[in-house]
Amino acid sequence: MLNIRPATDSDRNTIWEIFHEVIAAGDTYPIDSEMSRDGALAYWFGNGTHTYVAELDRLKRSSFQTDQHVVGTYILRPNQSGGGAHVANAAFMVPAVARGQGIGRAMGEHCLKEARRLGFRAMQFNFVVSTNESAVKLWQKLGMKIVATLPGAFRHPEKGYVDVYVMFQLFARA
Amino acid sequence: MLNIRPATDSDRNTIWEIFHEVIAAGDTYPIDSEMSRDGALAYWFGNGTHTYVAELDRLKRSSFQTDQHVVGTYILRPNQSGGGAHVANAAFMVPAVARGQGIGRAMGEHCLKEARRLGFRAMQFNFVVSTNESAVKLWQKLGMKIVATLPGAFRHPEKGYVDVYVMFQLFARA
Repeated sequence: MLNIRPATDSDRNTIWEIFHEVIAAGDTYPIDSEMSRDGALAYWFGNGTHTYVAELDRLKRSSFQTDQHVVGTYILRPNQSGGGAHVANAAFMVPAVARGQGIGRAMGEHCLKEARRLGFRAMQFNFVVSTNESAVKLWQKLGMKIVATLPGAFRHPEKGYVDVYVMFQLFARA
Repeated sequence: MLNIRPATDSDRNTIWEIFHEVIAAGDTYPIDSEMSRDGALAYWFGNGTHTYVAELDRLKRSSFQTDQHVVGTYILRPNQSGGGAHVANAAFMVPAVARGQGIGRAMGEHCLKEARRLGFRAMQFNFVVSTNESAVKLWQKLGMKIVATLPGAFRHPEKGYVDVYVMFQLFARA
């Protein structure tokens, strides 16, 4: 069972572990791979940022009971301030060991619902690396459209300069 | 004579005056119109941000000599960190009283030259409000292309929700 909930202070260690793993790989986010724990958590728990975690039941070997462990995290926030604050932005992280189980998809659906609930009129992803094909496909399934291709805007650690997509979705008005 | 040079601490008051005027109008930047002086200067003089001013000769009435006064300011910085740090971003401000004299154009040309000199491979403007037609035309003349239209991504104080352009230019390699 996957449960998605707002993050609390007690999630900070796990979030940093996930964040650090994703950033150290350096193939999906335009963030310095050596960003510090403090810097990372200041970013992920920034002012005006809604922070969520996805947790999965885990069977305890000793007792045949379950506890929860965090297998993903995402943030949702205004993409801009002032006259641009009605468009949301989001970022998602799932550790390698938890991929391929639909956690990204569940967080994406949760995020779009939350964005609507919070009154945003649209969602924009500013920087989807084109070689991150599973993410691109997933966002398209969730209604995000590629509205721009930024040529060579990301320097991939193995593939060199690769294109980046801007993705956007205007929410239908209720 | 227009001279463009790196900003110094002694320009901070003038920059704040220009910044505040532009932001208070609220029709071109997705920034809270009530951003404080400290917030504004922290943004305009941020880490990794190159800050410039354009100054114009002004005839002193009393002595028939000239002094300089600042008539515009711009910033140049990486648009992203890590694998995205080779793409530059810039923002420009000219106070209303100084518009229509080619100051924006001169700063734009200076900025693109500086970006190349600093080793950036491309320039990206993330948020050009479509109703800011003189800016859109100017950037196009300087080689920037509209790569995305973000529908209704800016709430204009008089015109309501208007489109926003993402503009991009890949620099020719020397």
